Amino acid sequence: MSTSAITYLDLVKACDNYPHIDVSKLPSAEGEDPAFYQLLLPDDPRPLGYIHPSVVRKMPWTSDFVVSPPEERPRTVQLLDSSNGRDTSAACNAAFEKVIQAAHDGGVFQSLSRPLREDFRVLGARYPPVQLKRSAAGLFGIACRGAHMTVYTRTPEGLKIWVPKRSAHLKTWPGKLDTSVAGGVRAEESPFECIIHEADEEASLPEDLVRKNVKACGAVTYLCESGSGSGGEFGLMVPDVLYVFDLEVAQDVILKPQDDEVEAFYLWDVQQVKDALLRKEFKTNCASVMIDFFVRHGIITDDNEPDYLEIVTRLHRALPVPLTSK
Amino acid sequence: MSTSAITYLDLVKACDNYPHIDVSKLPSAEGEDPAFYQLLLPDDPRPLGYIHPSVVRKMPWTSDFVVSPPEERPRTVQLLDSSNGRDTSAACNAAFEKVIQAAHDGGVFQSLSRPLREDFRVLGARYPPVQLKRSAAGLFGIACRGAHMTVYTRTPEGLKIWVPKRSAHLKTWPGKLDTSVAGGVRAEESPFECIIHEADEEASLPEDLVRKNVKACGAVTYLCESGSGSGGEFGLMVPDVLYVFDLEVAQDVILKPQDDEVEAFYLWDVQQVKDALLRKEFKTNCASVMIDFFVRHGIITDDNEPDYLEIVTRLHRALPVPLTSK
Repeated sequence: MSTSAITYLDLVKACDNYPHIDVSKLPSAEGEDPAFYQLLLPDDPRPLGYIHPSVVRKMPWTSDFVVSPPEERPRTVQLLDSSNGRDTSAACNAAFEKVIQAAHDGGVFQSLSRPLREDFRVLGARYPPVQLKRSAAGLFGIACRGAHMTVYTRTPEGLKIWVPKRSAHLKTWPGKLDTSVAGGVRAEESPFECIIHEADEEASLPEDLVRKNVKACGAVTYLCESGSGSGGEFGLMVPDVLYVFDLEVAQDVILKPQDDEVEAFYLWDVQQVKDALLRKEFKTNCASVMIDFFVRHGIITDDNEPDYLEIVTRLHRALPVPLTSK
Repeated sequence: MSTSAITYLDLVKACDNYPHIDVSKLPSAEGEDPAFYQLLLPDDPRPLGYIHPSVVRKMPWTSDFVVSPPEERPRTVQLLDSSNGRDTSAACNAAFEKVIQAAHDGGVFQSLSRPLREDFRVLGARYPPVQLKRSAAGLFGIACRGAHMTVYTRTPEGLKIWVPKRSAHLKTWPGKLDTSVAGGVRAEESPFECIIHEADEEASLPEDLVRKNVKACGAVTYLCESGSGSGGEFGLMVPDVLYVFDLEVAQDVILKPQDDEVEAFYLWDVQQVKDALLRKEFKTNCASVMIDFFVRHGIITDDNEPDYLEIVTRLHRALPVPLTSK
């Protein structure tokens, strides 16, 4: 255990920082504040997202959506099926596209102030692919997919980990330490494919090396309240899924920045990484991914960490939205 | 994904089979059935266990315990401090010893019908070590600690796993497949030390080999309803923590039964293990440990398993009792 004032559990809680309550019941509980609106897709009673009331009030809803009266419980935003029995998925996507474009054009939300780029998948949707703009995912409270790969090497002095420092000019988390390779998973790709192209773009790692040696190792899940660092609205509830991968490389493999998101790569031993974690130099969700790596590799153990069990369960929080189409 | 009718998620749910509700609120919710009694230790408001009402009715409580009236909410069983300011831990342990011995002598519970042996720790207790008889842990609904180590070897044909078959004469889970090495963690030992002696007793693995190469890899947590297979009362709520360890061994290391709990060891490839899992041949919690191993080793992935995320979160269920003294 560190003698620092900050603990690993504090870092995990800083990422999974939404109150530890049964959020699935929140919208239907009378008198609860805030009472989120359930995002409902056609012919599916399962809420696929939770929308903050302030977002519901400001969103320029089109006729594709029916918003329940504020006094009704549960509060819902129901997406209608305008496909006339043809392509429900395409109808949903067009509806999201339209309302998000209108909100973007109207300058309604801070989250949408930058140019709209790639789409995120609506996780759990029964008519795949249902998708919407990545920068709008937090507004709709859908589960977001990220992929994080920790690259490490074994040296005579022990295990060393490749740690990138984010560029100072980035809008989100400038100057913070990151996972070796990480990115949001686009709607049309798998976490594995995301890692392959991010490894090339961010760290100059050749595709064949990664494909051959990368190992999927699980996922970190958390529920966070959006706030400083994310560059968008505050107080939204964001369910996040980070697929974690390990890549062990030989000592002669060198990670180098390729795009302008990374300022530099450091090759650090475990103690250096621990120190940086406890100095809070990592982006919050990357700290959780690193702690998960330490747990899986026998570095943080029940023998040296009093919060071990709470860390392990908290890194895998049950989310209030379905993660499969079932 | 398997074409079998049984899925990996089904197996995980068969282990983590207590209803997925906020159990911490259950005892205080009016009209809930069953309304469990909170087990409270001296000077600590946190319930460290949940006792089924049928157990509360039958237990021959001594004057060390105050049982709340059945109509009160929350229902509580409060352990008093008879230490007069001296040793609270010893006072608690003596109180548990006395009431459990009385229940054993009176033949009150099926769980206590066999000779009383080692103690389990009351996880989360603030005056360590507080402990009680292992066979009574389910009756008091405290979190139980187990340690499971998967032993595997890399061969030219791929990864192979050592799988023991439990003896046919065992009272619990006879004839089922098990984790390579596993055992309940005694009150006075760590999960690591438990693995060391179990590896010798159950699998004839030398202590130095295990100490040098074993790797702690996290924990599987679940909440189960006691029932067939456990050899005790039905319907109790049992929070379980299984510390998981990996041990990679050379191909010339052979696991052999030493005590009479294991009938035989098999060295199986991944496909053989998968087939046995889906035929439900594993003890339920060992199936979860094996699935966790498959997730951590990139065998079950998001690309080949539609329930991936639900499996990952479900293997690490948040438990309704504290897991640390804080």
